[in-house]
Amino acid sequence: MKSYRKELWFQTSKRRELINITRDVERCLDESGIQEGLVLVNAMHITASVFINDDERGLHNDFERFLEKLAPEKPYNQYDHNGFEDNADAHIKRTIMGREVVVAITDGQLDFGPWEQIFYGEFDGKRRKRVLVKIIGE
Amino acid sequence: MKSYRKELWFQTSKRRELINITRDVERCLDESGIQEGLVLVNAMHITASVFINDDERGLHNDFERFLEKLAPEKPYNQYDHNGFEDNADAHIKRTIMGREVVVAITDGQLDFGPWEQIFYGEFDGKRRKRVLVKIIGE
Amino acid sequence: MKSYRKELWFQTSKRRELINITRDVERCLDESGIQEGLVLVNAMHITASVFINDDERGLHNDFERFLEKLAPEKPYNQYDHNGFEDNADAHIKRTIMGREVVVAITDGQLDFGPWEQIFYGEFDGKRRKRVLVKIIGE
Repeated sequence: MKSYRKELWFQTSKRRELINITRDVERCLDESGIQEGLVLVNAMHITASVFINDDERGLHNDFERFLEKLAPEKPYNQYDHNGFEDNADAHIKRTIMGREVVVAITDGQLDFGPWEQIFYGEFDGKRRKRVLVKIIGE
Repeated sequence: MKSYRKELWFQTSKRRELINITRDVERCLDESGIQEGLVLVNAMHITASVFINDDERGLHNDFERFLEKLAPEKPYNQYDHNGFEDNADAHIKRTIMGREVVVAITDGQLDFGPWEQIFYGEFDGKRRKRVLVKIIGE
Repeated sequence: MKSYRKELWFQTSKRRELINITRDVERCLDESGIQEGLVLVNAMHITASVFINDDERGLHNDFERFLEKLAPEKPYNQYDHNGFEDNADAHIKRTIMGREVVVAITDGQLDFGPWEQIFYGEFDGKRRKRVLVKIIGE
């Protein structure tokens, strides 16, 4: 069994942003040389997400609206967590979108359907944060 | 390390449908001959889900109602994504229900609690779509 | 490839409770002797969750409020599932929070960001229920 590990770093200019990281994960897979196995891609921070969906701007607007309806950023004082912080909404938004994805590796490729793309979902940005890519296989 | 891969194909007659695929995944596991490891089961389409819950019709009605309350199908024009398409709600519903499950394999069996069943959740059906089953182990 | 399996048992005194199980999972990892690989931690019951977030009481109150808004426990008869049972809300709450987490193992440690903690989320408690820890690697 081989294993591979890499951290991807991000600093967004906005509080909330969705970044397509499919190419970054593919580069990790190439570096690893692993042909058959699984790759885990997870946010290392609890106010960010990794998820798989479509790379379409309209849909990303819809996600933003959906998440703001379910767990609005403001007013900050609606959340118990927001004593010294203001990011309770980001903890909840990341929970809805998910912490991680596990993707099959077949013949040295991400084993994807036609429209699957991996995204980093930032919900409390403007600072350096990380995603972990861990691959195991052969 | 051994690995196994199979695609399961579905075409539902309704836009939304929940299909119990536990037996299909068990058949894959038998075919693989893997005794210890992990199985990843994921939707290969971004408007469908794979999740684990109870095979109970009342609960499935409750899920339908819950998902329609959170991300209603209509009116279609409430979503930016729905320019040429009408399935923004399906992208969001699948996000809530989840893309994938990872299940432990122990002694050649799915290592499940008493009521766990694997479902394919279709939210934009009436066409052929796929689920990936990937098993790694020994 | 090595594999390791353990069940963790819980009985909460309240219907809903969040329990930090990070130490329990670390003990499993130590017992396994596995240095590189993946650990799957999943609820074996379909009214409970395993998820990763912050160990902060205010945030846990916010989660409780958020989940009760989305899928309130009462009135019980709002759910089709609640004929003989009263836990439809717990099935839905667990779906939102997630069934499982997969965590990378690097150098014999959980490969975590600064604030990641693993929680058992009980949504229909007061009885003995289980979490599965499955580790594969080398």
